[in-house]
Formats: sequence, structure tokens, C-alpha cells
Amino acid sequence: MTTTQPLVGIMMGSANDWPIMRRAAEVLRDFDIAYETRVISAHRTPDLFFEYAVGLEARGLRVMIGGAGGAAHLPGVLAAKTTLPVLGVPIDATPMRGVDALHAIVQMPRGIPVATFAIGEPGAANAALFAAAILAGSDAAIAQQLKDFRIRQAEKIRNTPPPTLES
Amino acid sequence: MTTTQPLVGIMMGSANDWPIMRRAAEVLRDFDIAYETRVISAHRTPDLFFEYAVGLEARGLRVMIGGAGGAAHLPGVLAAKTTLPVLGVPIDATPMRGVDALHAIVQMPRGIPVATFAIGEPGAANAALFAAAILAGSDAAIAQQLKDFRIRQAEKIRNTPPPTLES
Amino acid sequence: MTTTQPLVGIMMGSANDWPIMRRAAEVLRDFDIAYETRVISAHRTPDLFFEYAVGLEARGLRVMIGGAGGAAHLPGVLAAKTTLPVLGVPIDATPMRGVDALHAIVQMPRGIPVATFAIGEPGAANAALFAAAILAGSDAAIAQQLKDFRIRQAEKIRNTPPPTLES
Amino acid sequence: MTTTQPLVGIMMGSANDWPIMRRAAEVLRDFDIAYETRVISAHRTPDLFFEYAVGLEARGLRVMIGGAGGAAHLPGVLAAKTTLPVLGVPIDATPMRGVDALHAIVQMPRGIPVATFAIGEPGAANAALFAAAILAGSDAAIAQQLKDFRIRQAEKIRNTPPPTLES
Amino acid sequence: MTTTQPLVGIMMGSANDWPIMRRAAEVLRDFDIAYETRVISAHRTPDLFFEYAVGLEARGLRVMIGGAGGAAHLPGVLAAKTTLPVLGVPIDATPMRGVDALHAIVQMPRGIPVATFAIGEPGAANAALFAAAILAGSDAAIAQQLKDFRIRQAEKIRNTPPPTLES
Amino acid sequence: MTTTQPLVGIMMGSANDWPIMRRAAEVLRDFDIAYETRVISAHRTPDLFFEYAVGLEARGLRVMIGGAGGAAHLPGVLAAKTTLPVLGVPIDATPMRGVDALHAIVQMPRGIPVATFAIGEPGAANAALFAAAILAGSDAAIAQQLKDFRIRQAEKIRNTPPPTLES
Amino acid sequence: MTTTQPLVGIMMGSANDWPIMRRAAEVLRDFDIAYETRVISAHRTPDLFFEYAVGLEARGLRVMIGGAGGAAHLPGVLAAKTTLPVLGVPIDATPMRGVDALHAIVQMPRGIPVATFAIGEPGAANAALFAAAILAGSDAAIAQQLKDFRIRQAEKIRNTPPPTLES
Amino acid sequence: MTTTQPLVGIMMGSANDWPIMRRAAEVLRDFDIAYETRVISAHRTPDLFFEYAVGLEARGLRVMIGGAGGAAHLPGVLAAKTTLPVLGVPIDATPMRGVDALHAIVQMPRGIPVATFAIGEPGAANAALFAAAILAGSDAAIAQQLKDFRIRQAEKIRNTPPPTLES
Repeated sequence: MTTTQPLVGIMMGSANDWPIMRRAAEVLRDFDIAYETRVISAHRTPDLFFEYAVGLEARGLRVMIGGAGGAAHLPGVLAAKTTLPVLGVPIDATPMRGVDALHAIVQMPRGIPVATFAIGEPGAANAALFAAAILAGSDAAIAQQLKDFRIRQAEKIRNTPPPTLES
Repeated sequence: MTTTQPLVGIMMGSANDWPIMRRAAEVLRDFDIAYETRVISAHRTPDLFFEYAVGLEARGLRVMIGGAGGAAHLPGVLAAKTTLPVLGVPIDATPMRGVDALHAIVQMPRGIPVATFAIGEPGAANAALFAAAILAGSDAAIAQQLKDFRIRQAEKIRNTPPPTLES
Repeated sequence: MTTTQPLVGIMMGSANDWPIMRRAAEVLRDFDIAYETRVISAHRTPDLFFEYAVGLEARGLRVMIGGAGGAAHLPGVLAAKTTLPVLGVPIDATPMRGVDALHAIVQMPRGIPVATFAIGEPGAANAALFAAAILAGSDAAIAQQLKDFRIRQAEKIRNTPPPTLES
Repeated sequence: MTTTQPLVGIMMGSANDWPIMRRAAEVLRDFDIAYETRVISAHRTPDLFFEYAVGLEARGLRVMIGGAGGAAHLPGVLAAKTTLPVLGVPIDATPMRGVDALHAIVQMPRGIPVATFAIGEPGAANAALFAAAILAGSDAAIAQQLKDFRIRQAEKIRNTPPPTLES
Repeated sequence: MTTTQPLVGIMMGSANDWPIMRRAAEVLRDFDIAYETRVISAHRTPDLFFEYAVGLEARGLRVMIGGAGGAAHLPGVLAAKTTLPVLGVPIDATPMRGVDALHAIVQMPRGIPVATFAIGEPGAANAALFAAAILAGSDAAIAQQLKDFRIRQAEKIRNTPPPTLES
Repeated sequence: MTTTQPLVGIMMGSANDWPIMRRAAEVLRDFDIAYETRVISAHRTPDLFFEYAVGLEARGLRVMIGGAGGAAHLPGVLAAKTTLPVLGVPIDATPMRGVDALHAIVQMPRGIPVATFAIGEPGAANAALFAAAILAGSDAAIAQQLKDFRIRQAEKIRNTPPPTLES
Repeated sequence: MTTTQPLVGIMMGSANDWPIMRRAAEVLRDFDIAYETRVISAHRTPDLFFEYAVGLEARGLRVMIGGAGGAAHLPGVLAAKTTLPVLGVPIDATPMRGVDALHAIVQMPRGIPVATFAIGEPGAANAALFAAAILAGSDAAIAQQLKDFRIRQAEKIRNTPPPTLES
Repeated sequence: MTTTQPLVGIMMGSANDWPIMRRAAEVLRDFDIAYETRVISAHRTPDLFFEYAVGLEARGLRVMIGGAGGAAHLPGVLAAKTTLPVLGVPIDATPMRGVDALHAIVQMPRGIPVATFAIGEPGAANAALFAAAILAGSDAAIAQQLKDFRIRQAEKIRNTPPPTLES
């Protein structure tokens, strides 16, 4: 979905990946960071993929997040086509439970980096938080939001009572 | 290397992969099947990759072999750009000993197949034998060569004497 | 199932593998490629297996697809008995989730290749698509069908709207 | 190697496996159990394999040991052709360090058992000791030898002095 | 359960393993081979374990089957205490899905062999079939039963109709 | 939960870990060993974590148990801040089924040990039993309880009847 | 090493990691990006670690790179203490060949992201390239350098002659 | 080796394990903690093992360390025979690089805990440090030594100069 002037793009090869990748979108929404989403497959729509990848910087995108399962090439191929930071989220979509995707994303060769996050929902959410951390480098408001998020997150744990056998 | 009217293309992302992929070239040479070789990276030269992939069928290529290590995207991206049969060879190029490459090649999503072979030299040789088997479908001479190869190969084992503790 | 003059054979060691392997049959049906199916076990019916394997080429079969789980020997033993291209599909049939079958199929020794595809349904479908790609080398109609399939497949993704948090 | 009336057969698919499989032969020699060895490949010489497998019981063989690496089908295919006990030894012959062979041997489907031992030399030696244990069931001399072996083995450890930082 | 003069013993460390290990008992029952069962833990009842293990041969037991999950020591410790053939069945009892048990059973050191079978039910059934194969070496009736079992098993597959998309 | 003068602390990074870690608390309760529980995250509340870790010895704690899933740093970071014995319990909280947590806990570098137990509930219970074993070194009552526990545990197995096909 | 006003920090837990992590430093030097290096262990020097982590932003650091092997906690603990982007490099330092470190770095829980790169030298170099990509978001010179690097890198591959059997 | 009134026992199944396990002995020597060493195999000398295990507490031993590779049963069997704390060290002794031993040690069932440490030398050293931590609970001198060790260890890192590209 495109909001005003998206700074972050969220790509996935199939609409089936959205239940995972929406965790990234939710974080960006909570941080008021404009983003766009796209279902484009590096394997099934390589030309569309290249077209999309070429215009990213010109359109003002600053960070790209790509989720993929199995032989997960999307983040790596995206990184091949742009010098924007590319964040990869391995998705648990096969009997290998995302380990295949993790290997296919994280083991990129020297020269074309992909920043890889945890398999599944925590990885999608963390990729968005990391995108915020990147943007925070030149945006004091986001930097402050990030610090606030950390404080709230810590607060929630501080307020967790010690669990008991009755609980 | 290009010989007359190559039927098989052997691609790899780095010249470092040649000591493995030459096992494929040797088999093709032994079968007198014309082939070409290319070092083109899906990650570091995506545009060159696409240019090369587009013209394959028109130039008469019939089978493509791609070798890659780590986050091995080359065979999958090639398969995305051509309907020729693409054979993938995982290369042992990282501390994961080729398991990463195997996962990144074999776990392709529905719709874009890559025929995957064993990690390393046996896989490279077998990819070439498999290319011969594909070509044999419409070339009686190659079909015969393949049968002869099998006979010679069996003969060698038949002639192996039972090993002894003295041997 | 046998239709007129099958070009592709689909083998499996147990009827339990059919829910996976039917994905291959469905693709071949959609491509109007005649195929036959057989439940023959390399382990439990080795003699039947050999009988069946011997006559394949004479009967006009051009590509063989074999699915197997666990210590998945079916595709490799088939490849030992024929020079036809053999495509292997690892099946998730044990607590190892198909990783055992993948290893038992893909790691074939030099000399007897088996083209291996993804674990489970995507692998079965892709094996059939790959069989089509092999046949396309000497059959312009199949070649065109394959290109059409790719276009339809891409179209479906092109038409996928960007997902939103409301979707 | 054949000695008088072999009771145990040691098979391997390649002479390269002999440095591992000779550990089995050495144990049998030490137990004075007649054995024979054969290099026969289930993949490269399937017909020779079947011929050999058919006559085993008639020739008086009682236990078969098969060593194999990679997509290790030899023990399983042998078990498919004989009701003699088949012992499988996974060999470390690929970058997967024998884990592929272990999976391809141990994960046999219901109905055709292969008794699997450790990867490499310890597994080869243990397969031979296990063959002795099988034969011991109807041969008191071997039963006694096995007990003696255990005692000697224990004695060696009993006599090992506690190691010191100076040792 | 003890029937008259058991030839095979089936051990497990916990009654929770019985749903798997009963597959072994069922096979032995079908072969009319007398067996006994015991729940004895190498870890929780080491002394009971040793007592039980000492008397096996004297009581006429000929083969032992041990099932265990996790850090599966039962078969190995049993093998340490008897020279009878010990068959090990890894059980899927932890999040590692039986891979831990497989490693803990199959990787026995040189000198004390454990014959290992597949994880779970197929392994339990196969261990019993293998026990029958051992006993068949000196019992023509069991040998014949084993051959009959193989024939019936093959017959069932021979009679499986080729599956169809309608099936 | 704090009882009088806790000797053992049970830490976890999230209340979601309590269903696993309560198995440790139950054992301690059964042994009448006073314990406290805390939800403190090494990642989300590092400062709270350090504060808590500093005062442990002074408050009389003798053993610490930490459970964590995924990139499980809690036990290792705790061990970095205290010289008390730290026991780590890997939790199955991701698609990797606790294998990630196991690696992240057990592979501590030389100098800062963490005693690691099995993935999940058995590991949590065993960590508590191990804590009891540590305390037993200077507390004869606990030592006796531990022996009694072992005896009861063995008794339960001794009393398990041999399972039958009817059971 | 500190140069003028470092923008990037490279941390590692032991000087033994420097042969890997220097690949990051080399890239930064080539890009003329000021960086500092530190050997500080999250496990052996937790207090020094916290002191160092607290001041990073104030001193003008913009991106942190942490390398670690085994139970690799350094990047995760660093990420817990700063909102700067933290890049993690798993190091092959144990018999697990870096897979342990990969799991311990990449599987961070929701809330505290670590951007993970490939095991070993390619990962260290790519982390530095990724740091450059982050800085490029607000520094046109670095952005240009990154594009030039990509072009040079592609050029090198474009100029690689097709390998031949004579090469 | 026995010094006066050993508090810690170091066991291993083979003298081949001593090069790893001596790291434990060295730490204990440095802490002036009396220890003894024994080569006793749970598999090859089960009776000797039980004899040794029975007398440990009476002789004043307080902590046991057991190292083992492959199907590493030593620590678990030891834990079955004593209520002393048992520390297990997985040894890299097979092509599985110690992963087999890790699984065979750490995945102990509920009721019989083994505290597991890292594969190889770091694990051996850490087991000894952990033994010291256990003893420190009732020995102020060892407690102080442990704190001093931590300080020296931290000091060494504090004094490590930031590495440079020239270093």
C-alpha cells in the first residue's frame, strides 16, 4: 500500500507472505513512517522486478524490506539492483521451516550485502524497527520514537509480575 | 569457452567456481557436445546476466548449467529468465560446505524449476551427463554415446578385483 | 494412469505418495502431455521395478519422474536402469521432514545423475514443468505452452494488488 | 577377497571405499570368519548387482555388509534383493561428511530393514563385530571369541593409567 | 509381555515409547516369534537395567530391541552389557524430532555395535523384521516366513492400480 | 515468586516462557527449596538485568536458572555478571524448534560457563534437579531428598508392567 | 583503531576475531569512512561493554558492526544498549563452523533487531558495505562511492574471459 | 591423576579424549582444586564404570566431569549412578564434529540431569570453571579465586589495544 512519499518498501514474492510481512507494516505504521508494499516475484516476474527495482531511489525510497521463503532469492536480487539498504526476512514456507530461506538470504557473497533478520514474524517486525533505526540517522523525530519504543518495551517487562505456580 | 554452435551453456558467478564447473565441461567435451562458458554474476552483474539470459534460445542453446555457492541464486534467476531447462550445481564455497547452496538452489517455488545435482564435482559432472540425456531425446548419436558411457563405466567396475587386506 | 502413448512416467513407491505426486500429473494434464503413473517400490518390488525400467524407452517414454520419501532410492535406482532423464521429488514422509529424502536423492555419485526438485508439492509440480521444458526442445507446441504458462503466471502476480493492513 | 566358504560378504560401490571397509575385513580376519569382498555399484552396475545378490544365500553367505557414501543406496537395494541380514555403513565421501549417507541408509521404509552403523571406520568395524554376534547365535566358537574380544577390550581400558598433565 | 521362551526382548525406557515399540511386537506376533517386553530405564533404573541385561543369554534370548528418544542411551548401554545383537530404534520424543536419538544410537564407538533403524514406527517394525532375519539364519521356518512376507508385501504393491487424478 | 530467602532464581525473558520454566519451579517446590522468579530480558531491559544480576549473591541466592528461546542470550549474559552457577534452558520458541536456543546457550566461550540442559520442559525440570544437586553439596537434607527422589523415580519404573499388545 | 570522528564502530570479543573483522575495516578504509575498532567481550567484560555502548551516539557513531563466534551474544547485547543500527557477523570459531554463531545472532526476538550477514570474511566485508549504504542515505559522496564500487565490481566480472579447459 | 582428596573427578572413555579434557585439569590445577582422572568407558567397561561410580561420594568427590564423543553416553550413565552434579563435555571425535555428542549429552530425559558445556576445549575448560563455581558455594577461598579469575580475564581484554589494519 502506498501512503504519502514512501520511505520504506516492503516486497514479497507472493501474497501468501503477507501474514508475516504485515508485522513490518504494522511497525512502520506505528512509527508513522510512510511505506509501500508490493507483491513481485524475482522468479515469476523478473522483468517487473527489475523495472520496480530501478526506480526506487528516484522515487525517494530509503530502505527496502524483502520477505521470502524456500529458495529465497528476492532480497538478494533486489540488493543486486539497488544500492539502497536491503533487509531480508526468511519465511517459514516449506518443510524446512525457514532454514532454507535463512541460508538463501544470509549467505550472500562478498559485494552485495543483505541484512538478514529472524525467521518469520519477529524478523519482519525487527526489519521494520531496523529500517526505523536507519532513518533515525538523519531524522531526529524517528530517533526519538525509537527511543520511546524501547522505553515502552522495557516498561512492559518491568511491570510483568514474577510468575507464580498459581499463575 | 565457445566452440561451434554451443548447445549447452555453463555459467558461474565467479572464476573461482571453475575448478568445480570444469568437470561439466570435461564431460561435454568427451561427448563432443559443443558448449560455451560464462562468468556472470546474478548479484554483481544483474544487467549483464539478463542480457545474456535473453538471447540463449535464439542462439541455439538447448540446456543451461549454473554453478553457485553460498546464497546460490544464479540457477534460479536464470530459470526465471528462460524456459530452457536449467541445471543447478551447488558449490562448497563457505563454512556451510555447500548445504547453503543446496538449499538456495533446490527449494525453488512452484512455477520456476531448477534441476539440482550433488554438491561439488560429482554434481557438475552429473549435470553435464544429464544435459546429454536431454539432448539424447532428439539426437540418436548422443543417445548412443550415453549408452556407451554407461557400458564403459560399468565395465570399469566389473573389472575391479575384490579388494584384499593386502591391497 | 496411462493416456495415449505416454511421454512422461510418474513413479512412486507407495500410493501414499500420490497426494504429492498428483501435482505433477495435474501440470502434465494442463499441458496436454500424455503420461502414465505407477506405484512400484525399489525396495519392496525390485524385480518389478527392473522389468518396468527396462522397457521405458522402447515404449516411447521420454522423461521419468520419481517421488520418494525417507531413504529415497527410487529415483536413483531408476536412473541406474535407464538413460532417460530422471527427475526426483523428495517427499516429506518422516520426522526428518523430507531432508532425509533430499539427501538420498540429490547426492548421487558421479556417473548416474538424478535431477532433484524441492521437497513436496512444489517439487512435484516443478518436476512436471521441467519435463515439459525437456520435451519443448523438440516440440514447438509444448515450447509455446511453456511460454504461455510463464506469461499467465507472471500476469497473476502483476495483477496482485499491493497488500494493505486492512487486507 | 574370498577365503574358504565365506559367511560374510562385504560390498562397496567403489574401490575408494575400501580404506574404510577394510576395518570390517580386519575384524572378520581376527575372528577367523571367512568373508568375501566385492566392488559392485547399485547405480553403475545394477544388473551385476542383482546377479550377485540373487545367489548369496545359495552360496552359504549368512550376513552382508554394505558400505556407501553420498546418496548411499547400496545397502538398501541389497536388502531389497535378499532376506539375509544387511548391515549398512555410511561413508564420509562428500562435503556433507557422511550425514547424507546416514540418512540414505538408516531411513529405510517399513518392510525392508537395513541395520545401520556409525559413519566411517568405527561403523565398518562395528558392522563386522555385529556380523560376528549374529553368527554367534548358532556358532559357540564365535560366541566365545566375541566374549574374549570384549574382555580384551575392557582389559585395555582397565590398564590405561589415569592421564596426568605431564602425560 | 512374555510368551513361551522368548527369543526376542523389546526394551524401552518409558511406557510412553510403547505406541512406537508395539510395531515391533506386532511383527513378531505375526511371525509367531516369542518375545518379551520391558520398561526399564538406563538412566532412571541403572541397577535394574544391569540385572536384566546379565541374564538375557541364559534365559534363551537371542536378539534384543531397544527403543529410546532424546539422549537415547538404552540400546548402547544394553550392548555394553551383552554380546547378543542389539537393535536400536530412535524415537521422535523431543523438539529435535528423533534426530537427537538417531545420533545418540547410531554413532556408537568402535567395539560396541548397535544396529540402528529408522526413526519411529517404521524403525520399530523393521527392527523386528531384522530380528526375524537373524533368527532365520538357524531356523528354516522363520526363513520361510520372511520370504513369504516379502512376497505378500510385493504382491500388495503389484496389485496397486496406477493412481489417477480422479482417485 | 519469592518465598523466604530464595536460594535459586528462575529468570526468563518473557512471560511466554513461564509454561516451560514452571517445570523448574514445581521441582523446587517439591524439594522445599526456596526460589524466586523474574521476567527480565537481557535484550529489552539490559539495565534492569544488570541491576538484578549484581545483587544476587548478597541476597543469598546460590544457583541461577535462565530459560530463553531463539537467540537465547539470557543465561550467557547472566553468567557474565555473576560467579554463581548459571543453568541454561533452551526453549522451543521459533521454527527452529529450540536448536537455535541450544546453540546460543551451550556454545559459550572459554571463561564464562553456562550449564546447559535439554530443550523445553525436561530441561527446565532437570535444571531444578541439578540446582538441588548443587545445594546438596552443603545441605544434607537436600542430598537426602535427591536420593529419595531417585528411588521413587526408579520405583515407578520398576512397577511399570511389561506392555502388551492388548495394553 | 580510531581515525578522525569515527562513524562506524567495529567490535569483537577477542583479538582472534580480527583476521575476519579486518575485512570490514578494509572496506571502510577504501571508502574513506572513519571507523574505530574495539576488542570488548560481552561475556568477559560486561561492564566495559556497557560503558562503551552508552557513549556511542554522543561520540557521533552512526553504525555499529559486531563480530562473534560460538554463542555469539555481542551483537545482540550491543543492540540491547543502543538504538544505532547494529550489524552482526557470525564467525566460524568452533566445530559447528559458524552455524552456532549464525543462530545466536540472527534469531533475535521481536523488539531488538540485529542485521545479520554471512558467516566469516564475506559477511565482515558486506557488513561494512552495508554500513556505507546506511551512511549513503544522508551522504551523497558515500552514495556515489557505493555506486562506483558496484560498477568496478561488475566491470571485473565483465572482463573475466570465459574459462576454458586449458585455463 | 589423583592428588590429595580429590573434589572433582574427570572421566573419559578413551585416552584419546585427554588432549581435550586436560583443559579441565589445567583449570583445576590453576585453582588448586584437587582432582582425579580416570579412563573408563561406559560401553567397553560397564562394570568397572559402575564400581567406580558407586564409591564417588564416599570418597569425598563433589563434582564429576565427563567428556565423550560420538554416541556420548558417559556423562548420562554417570549421572544415572550418582546424585553428584555431573558436567558433560561433548568431544569432536567423528565426522559430525561433536554435534552427535552434544545431542547425546544435552538431551537427557526428565529426572537425570547432565549439565552440558560447549563442544571441545572451551567446554572442558568451562566445565572446570563451573565445578569451581559449585564448590565456591561452600568454600570462600574458591569463591574468591573465581572472582580473581574473572578480573584477570577482564583485565586481559581491557588491555587489548584496538586492532589496526597494520596489526
